Amino acid sequence: MGVLMGTSARSILRPINSSTNTIIKVSLFFFLATPPLSVLSIDMLVTDNKKLHNTNMYKNPNLIVRRNKEFTVIVSFDRPFNNQLDSVQLEFVIGSTPDENKGTFITVSIGKNKRDILWQARVVTTQGNDIMVGITPDPNCIVGRFSTFVTVVTDFGKQRTQKNSDTDVYVLFNPWDPADQVYMPKDTERQEYLLNEVGTIYNGDYNNMTSRSWNYGQFQQGVLDACLLVMDTGKVPLIYRGNATEIVRQGSALMNSQDDNGVLVGNWSSDYSLGTAPTAWTGSPEILLKYAREGCVPVCFAQCWVFAGVLNTFLRCLGIPARIITNYCSAHDNTGNLKTDIVLDESGNVNKGRTRDSVWNYHCWNEVYMKRPDLPEKYSGWQVVDCTPQETSDGLYRCGPTSVKAVKEGELSYPFDARFVFAELNSDVVYHQSDKYGNLKIIYVDAGYTGKLIVTKKPNSNGYDDITSNYKYPEGSEMDRQTMQNAERRGVTTRDYIPLTEAGVEIELLADTIKMGDDFMLTMNIKNQSSKTCTIRTTLTGCVVFYTGVTSTFFKSEKKNATVGPRKTQTLKINVQAFEYMPYLVEQSNLQFIVYGRIDETGVSLSTMKVITLRPPELVLRVSGTAQVGKDLMVSVEFRNPYKFILKNVQLRLDGPGLIQTKLKTYREIISGGFLQYVDTITPMSPGRKMLIACLDCAALRQVTNQLEINVM
Amino acid sequence: MGVLMGTSARSILRPINSSTNTIIKVSLFFFLATPPLSVLSIDMLVTDNKKLHNTNMYKNPNLIVRRNKEFTVIVSFDRPFNNQLDSVQLEFVIGSTPDENKGTFITVSIGKNKRDILWQARVVTTQGNDIMVGITPDPNCIVGRFSTFVTVVTDFGKQRTQKNSDTDVYVLFNPWDPADQVYMPKDTERQEYLLNEVGTIYNGDYNNMTSRSWNYGQFQQGVLDACLLVMDTGKVPLIYRGNATEIVRQGSALMNSQDDNGVLVGNWSSDYSLGTAPTAWTGSPEILLKYAREGCVPVCFAQCWVFAGVLNTFLRCLGIPARIITNYCSAHDNTGNLKTDIVLDESGNVNKGRTRDSVWNYHCWNEVYMKRPDLPEKYSGWQVVDCTPQETSDGLYRCGPTSVKAVKEGELSYPFDARFVFAELNSDVVYHQSDKYGNLKIIYVDAGYTGKLIVTKKPNSNGYDDITSNYKYPEGSEMDRQTMQNAERRGVTTRDYIPLTEAGVEIELLADTIKMGDDFMLTMNIKNQSSKTCTIRTTLTGCVVFYTGVTSTFFKSEKKNATVGPRKTQTLKINVQAFEYMPYLVEQSNLQFIVYGRIDETGVSLSTMKVITLRPPELVLRVSGTAQVGKDLMVSVEFRNPYKFILKNVQLRLDGPGLIQTKLKTYREIISGGFLQYVDTITPMSPGRKMLIACLDCAALRQVTNQLEINVM
Repeated sequence: MGVLMGTSARSILRPINSSTNTIIKVSLFFFLATPPLSVLSIDMLVTDNKKLHNTNMYKNPNLIVRRNKEFTVIVSFDRPFNNQLDSVQLEFVIGSTPDENKGTFITVSIGKNKRDILWQARVVTTQGNDIMVGITPDPNCIVGRFSTFVTVVTDFGKQRTQKNSDTDVYVLFNPWDPADQVYMPKDTERQEYLLNEVGTIYNGDYNNMTSRSWNYGQFQQGVLDACLLVMDTGKVPLIYRGNATEIVRQGSALMNSQDDNGVLVGNWSSDYSLGTAPTAWTGSPEILLKYAREGCVPVCFAQCWVFAGVLNTFLRCLGIPARIITNYCSAHDNTGNLKTDIVLDESGNVNKGRTRDSVWNYHCWNEVYMKRPDLPEKYSGWQVVDCTPQETSDGLYRCGPTSVKAVKEGELSYPFDARFVFAELNSDVVYHQSDKYGNLKIIYVDAGYTGKLIVTKKPNSNGYDDITSNYKYPEGSEMDRQTMQNAERRGVTTRDYIPLTEAGVEIELLADTIKMGDDFMLTMNIKNQSSKTCTIRTTLTGCVVFYTGVTSTFFKSEKKNATVGPRKTQTLKINVQAFEYMPYLVEQSNLQFIVYGRIDETGVSLSTMKVITLRPPELVLRVSGTAQVGKDLMVSVEFRNPYKFILKNVQLRLDGPGLIQTKLKTYREIISGGFLQYVDTITPMSPGRKMLIACLDCAALRQVTNQLEINVM
Repeated sequence: MGVLMGTSARSILRPINSSTNTIIKVSLFFFLATPPLSVLSIDMLVTDNKKLHNTNMYKNPNLIVRRNKEFTVIVSFDRPFNNQLDSVQLEFVIGSTPDENKGTFITVSIGKNKRDILWQARVVTTQGNDIMVGITPDPNCIVGRFSTFVTVVTDFGKQRTQKNSDTDVYVLFNPWDPADQVYMPKDTERQEYLLNEVGTIYNGDYNNMTSRSWNYGQFQQGVLDACLLVMDTGKVPLIYRGNATEIVRQGSALMNSQDDNGVLVGNWSSDYSLGTAPTAWTGSPEILLKYAREGCVPVCFAQCWVFAGVLNTFLRCLGIPARIITNYCSAHDNTGNLKTDIVLDESGNVNKGRTRDSVWNYHCWNEVYMKRPDLPEKYSGWQVVDCTPQETSDGLYRCGPTSVKAVKEGELSYPFDARFVFAELNSDVVYHQSDKYGNLKIIYVDAGYTGKLIVTKKPNSNGYDDITSNYKYPEGSEMDRQTMQNAERRGVTTRDYIPLTEAGVEIELLADTIKMGDDFMLTMNIKNQSSKTCTIRTTLTGCVVFYTGVTSTFFKSEKKNATVGPRKTQTLKINVQAFEYMPYLVEQSNLQFIVYGRIDETGVSLSTMKVITLRPPELVLRVSGTAQVGKDLMVSVEFRNPYKFILKNVQLRLDGPGLIQTKLKTYREIISGGFLQYVDTITPMSPGRKMLIACLDCAALRQVTNQLEINVM
């Protein structure tokens, strides 16, 4: 029997009184016809079980299994096991106060007086003094690390094996099993949303999308233990840990340091000197391992994609299918009234002090795939969860899980936080103008600006899926109207604007893809849809903004007037030069332009805005040679500083699950025009398509990333 | 015009630049045809407005109004107001960063360029230099204390009156108004659930109900400010304070000191030497005023009725109709699985270490009456809210609001905490027995034990309403079955017991009302419903328990056997003597008896339990003379110590809204047989039916209370 050859974890019994209930009366053994059994060893059959349980990718010496699927162990005794006479219990214990009623003390048994609670056990085969026992954890069982004990029960007491961490078994969620809350039927989807160790996170702006690769590394050594540690640190009660809804909700609170010393410290200040810039990370393992290694002190610093990246690792690692979503033009409406208020002053410039809501260029959150037994059945499936600390949800910084379907239908009563997600996608952008006394007047409402485009990485591809239609019915459709009505019925503030005078004129702003450091031309189209000639006076304001829409510096204000004939369009060109914006650029190099216009003939005002993400200089990645497991491969990373200024304290990270452990190099400076080449040797650890990820980061230049797919033979 | 005679709060204008927007160009005034207005004073017409707004009971010198109802103020100028030429704004401001978009900066105006935001204003009358302005706060407006400003707007700038706390106005919820979230149509209900300052809280056990009066004192001086302070201390965002759902939810978290330094520290330890025993309080004002006076340090100590009493004050004070509910046999199921597990050892005694769930003798919570705009319409009406810190709800100690109707129907998906409330009412009591190895076996399931009886004080009466049918369909009815199915569909654990062998025998425990210190007889009826004679061996365990069902000391264990003929009942008598239980009594003097029985013929086990609340000695209250407003009245409180032991450090509280401020006397000791008489003079402050409340409390004797209704002429 090949299976009996399992070589891993063995636990040798010492017959010691390890429980208060255990009574061992050795003297009595002499009077028995059959001497009591003794356990000599337990073999967890790690390699075979892991293969069957789709857990062999985890770099972890212990057995890892999934719920509601049988795993086998071999127990060796000092004599053959007798099914009629002997009674043996297998016990699986988690936490400090194990309790049968709470699912933290599991007992299954074989032989005489068989009695299984929650989990099931059976004798698979017997060979000599060895028996192979098959054990099936129940489909709602707690997810985590259990200690294993084997207990021989006699009329005179119990003999329990000693605690031995080698025979500990991790139990995870099981997306392969229809009875599991996180069952995911399609294999291609499980491959992507559960097993893929690398992913693509989309950023930039909606008509100029960019992306970066992210190392989830959910199977990397130490990551599983770090994820369990996160829950222990956050005091997630064990009885909740079999419930994916609870794990997801609590996980979303535990990724951020607010309230509970979670994993990451959010920082949008642009000063990251006390930690690592959010733009500089290449993946989650570096962060989770640092958190675990340094005593659960929150790691500095993160912004939305870092939060989402680490949460994705946490979820996939525990066995919950998860993916990262990017919502372009994501409203952050801090009053929960479905309006994002932008306040202009008398001359059409943004009043920073009075504009507290903002539209994020893009915002990343996660989706998890699971049943929602607490909700009507149709709301199962993909659920939004967002761990970026934006607003408190019922007292803590967290958001979700909330059913994507319920959000689409405006059915906002059900837990958790459907209202907030709905507002991110459906807020109107309301332009107010203040008069000289500070009184506000609404001048323009843009109902289509937010939730423009929602994307995620396509399974088994490096492209993206446009999943906007999962979240929204087409703008203006009958179903869209019904959704809004539903939402209003569920207590979302009515859009009770005084009807605005139709301007009859539309302003459009256009620009091509622009490289950071280039001069460029902005096109302003003024479309007169009315039957009369109109004279319009416009103010164009240019400012540098963070990806959160928060304004940093105004660098340009230009007035242009135009007279446009009936049903004509006039095009104005505005020249923007590098020296105007370069000194003020922040972080992800976003320029925001707002046009305010006033029509002479009618006195009507109108407004529009556009965000442009400038392309950073390229980071070049090359390999030489053929990629083969265990064989060295040369990698080169190249970069030239195209600017007139010196780049200081430059961090270069190289990462790639299955290829290389996260590698960090720092350079004190790269002079103007200077060329950097970093060459290293990597040794692929497993075959298949791998992603090599590089990221260069310094205070003056952020978000310089690239990736290279390597097919390892 | 009588109204113009209003004598209260006046604010004298000093034309000072009190805002950054204000520009005063005095030199220009000379060139104007009409000189600008100046505000001389503002009269808030406190007495008249309060009468109209049903707020005249509040002992508070400021104006207090209710939402969506007009109040009037008189503004006096230095010359007559001209509706065509003058422009005057009234501004109402709350919080540190007033903002028009957040409802924290309200502007209404009269005269030229009229512009009202959210609230409405109109000129009611003009007389000479005075105008009377009517102002109507919007029906969703923030509840709290607003500052009032009057601003004269001219082409050259604004003149704003100075901040003056005398013209501050409190805005409260309005149960009289159909547009308000807390609208309550019936006047008798508003009289009881909003305006009654005193109430009855039911306790004891379900077939031996007792009660105590409680001084809510929501109108007492300082209480309204204390309630607002509680929200400020708890950092309840101002934008949530117009939403009753949010105020109720956050209020439930803020009453307990867990998480957020709330009002009261829960203590069930029976050691209250570091504060006031929960049983010793007579009402909420003493607690709320102590909390406010001592810098928001949580007050020691409370148990469920104290938490519920103070929350009731908080809610009624802010204008939300509220009442206290008592649920007899309230399950505290700390695993959320609808099972309350009681573990017996081999010989039928309760295993304290393994019995973690408990059935509380009674548990008090609150109900609030309001619309739930976040839920389908049928779930509006009474909502459960519970501030006793039992289990965390979504991370914090709080519970509710949850629709009573939804709980009744087992519709547990909707927020907040319907599951927990459902479990309190519908848990099965499951008796387990452990064998010698500690293995558990279910021996009996009692599906009807919890949620036995649910009561609240009847409006306009000193009796109670049995509202069990608001929460539950009759046990065993078709609707009850459907409710349980709904609940299971919503993720409440299925009751998946292995069917038990029918015992065919029932055990019943009975006792009369028993005075503490008396010997008494317990009756055990063994009903044999089968067609065969059975021999039963019973073990009766007697223990002293807290009202939470937590066991303190075992004082009795008695074995009785009986042989009962087919379809016969045999009655056994068990004699319980005072010396057996008196030394061990705790707190509310509850004795719990559990019978475990085993039938010889079938080997089937069964179990049942009964809690008996012993009556404490009486506290006698008398008055002499006729009760008239402002006239002294003699009150006498009498007590005799009937025990063989000395009562030490005895606290005596006398309380009664409208009669007396909470009065505390302490006595070092009352010797065995000693008689205490305390005589005092009270001076009724207002006419009507009042309640005089007395409470005597010491470590050896708790819950000695009485009340006396006094009709003040």
